[in-house]
Order: sequence, then structure tokens, then C-alpha cells
Amino acid sequence: MAKPIFPAFDPADVAETNVTTYPEPFRAANSRRWNRRLGDHAGLENFGVNLTRIVPGAQSSARHAHARQDEFVWVVSGEVVLETDEGAQTLRAGMCAGFPAGTGNAHRFVNRSSGDALILVVGDRTPFEEIAYPDIDLHGKAGADGRPAFARKDGTPYRAGASARKLSQPPREGVA
Amino acid sequence: MAKPIFPAFDPADVAETNVTTYPEPFRAANSRRWNRRLGDHAGLENFGVNLTRIVPGAQSSARHAHARQDEFVWVVSGEVVLETDEGAQTLRAGMCAGFPAGTGNAHRFVNRSSGDALILVVGDRTPFEEIAYPDIDLHGKAGADGRPAFARKDGTPYRAGASARKLSQPPREGVA
Repeated sequence: MAKPIFPAFDPADVAETNVTTYPEPFRAANSRRWNRRLGDHAGLENFGVNLTRIVPGAQSSARHAHARQDEFVWVVSGEVVLETDEGAQTLRAGMCAGFPAGTGNAHRFVNRSSGDALILVVGDRTPFEEIAYPDIDLHGKAGADGRPAFARKDGTPYRAGASARKLSQPPREGVA
Repeated sequence: MAKPIFPAFDPADVAETNVTTYPEPFRAANSRRWNRRLGDHAGLENFGVNLTRIVPGAQSSARHAHARQDEFVWVVSGEVVLETDEGAQTLRAGMCAGFPAGTGNAHRFVNRSSGDALILVVGDRTPFEEIAYPDIDLHGKAGADGRPAFARKDGTPYRAGASARKLSQPPREGVA
């Protein structure tokens, strides 16, 4: 079959990234899922669509609940464990899950299988979002663009903490 | 594998419907695609997610362009032809397409194969939407709920037309 022509495309042609905006010490746990930002690639602005590849042992995100943004996940391939307040359940390709804003029921997807799991994740960009993380000392808060900045639950910024550590242990020369 | 527990679910457990809000004479052409409203089933409000089964020879919708709402389509199984202003192209499972609001580039999906095609369709519900249909005398306009009502391009309501026909040719007794 011929290669698709824009606005259609093959997700494989969109670069994968494991970038996370989580602060330390949560970055490593969130860096073994690889996102292809399909919605951004297509020029969509009202919602995001990520094709997320979760390697064995990794998570899609820390367990979280959105206050204002809806989320929907479609399992494309592999097996993935969905963890919510009700516990854990394994989902296979062709199953799906929806997470309405404001329920307080936090979720994450974890790959406990021996192969990659692929999920399609859709979330809107309603402004002034708040994201609760029941399992770790993290809270996300978004402004008008709907993209969250993170802090501790008491509101203390994690950047200040990193800066304090930097003062007590300066980086070696040549290390950024 | 165990049956998924809400908020996860098997799309097969959501009823299929071929309901269309198109007015006559466009209803028949739009009644051979079957939707499972996965987003509504999950309780999502900010965007819709439909799993759409297009039978051979049928279309997902008339070719249309959104003014304010973004749309994203993931091909789940089968083969489907995407028609846009640039022409037609065949897409297979695992390919996708995005339709940003406001481009004016109209699209529809048609099944020209001999088997069912299954696509996952995501669209947000930005209010005061307008939908242009370049190929037929139809225009969609939504209010605050983002759900379109249809009229002719000159603004004449199709319902009035149906009512006028009713006057000139009254229904037989016992026919609703």
C-alpha cells in the first residue's frame, strides 16, 4: 500500500520521545514510556493524541486524576495493567477505558508483560486544569494553555528544592 | 482474560447505532455506518469518541470540514478510503489522520473494500461550531452544546421543506 499523504500519516513517521515534565525524583520512573504526539503532528490544538509505547516494567504516567480534562485510552497492542482506586486489571488490544474529569478516581497504565504495550491516549486541553497524584507528593496545575506545571502537594515548587541541592553540591566543571 | 471492569470496557458491550441527525435526502447514505459511542459510554463530555464500523460501500459521514472542532481518526481494522480536497487514498489498520479546525479541507471515509472497516473517531465539542459540506446542499451549525443542527446552505431549514411536502402530499391514514 502507498505511503499515506497528509493529513493522513503513518504513526511510525512521527518521532518517539520519552521527555517528561515531571520534576525529580519522579523523572526516571516516567522515562520508559515513549510517546508519538500524533495530534500535535496533525496540527490539532483542542485535544492531544499520543501513541504511547510502554516498555516492560514501565508506566504511562504516575497514577493521577484530572479535575477538568477528560481522558480516553484505547489499547492498540500488547497487554497493559490499568490501576485505579478499585485495583488492577489487565487489558488487551481492542479494549478501552475512559476517565471523566472530576471523579477523583486516579489511574495509570503499567506494563507487567514481557513485550511492549501500545496505547492510544486522548486528552483535551481545558484550561486551569488541576491534576491530583494520590501516591506521590506531586500536584499539577495548568494555566490558560492547559499544560500543567508541577509542585509538591503543599504548593512548594520542586525547582526550589533542586536549586537548594545545587547550592549544597555544585556540579563539577564541564557538567551542565 | 477476565471481562474488563469499569472505567475499562470492551467496545463490544456498547450498543451499535446507525442513527443520523442528517435531514432528508441525506439520511440513507449516512445510515450504513454503525457507531459505538465509547466516550459517552465512559461519561466523557469534553470530546466524543466513536468506534465506527463502515460496511462495504458506505461512508462515515458526508464530506465535511469543521470550523472550530478538531477531529482525529485511527484506523482499527480493515481498509478505508479517505477523501479530502487532495483526492482519495486508502488507509489500513494502524494509520491515522488529523483534521484541524478551520482549514476548510473537507473529508470523509468510504469503505470500497469487501469487508467491514473499523475506525476510531475523536472530535471535541467546542461550542458554536459550523460544519461545511462542499459536495451537498447542507450546512451544520451548533450552539453552546457543540452538537450541530442542519439546514440548507442558504439557511433554509430542511424541516420546513419536509413540512411543505407533507402539506402537498398528506400521509395515508395509519402512516405516521
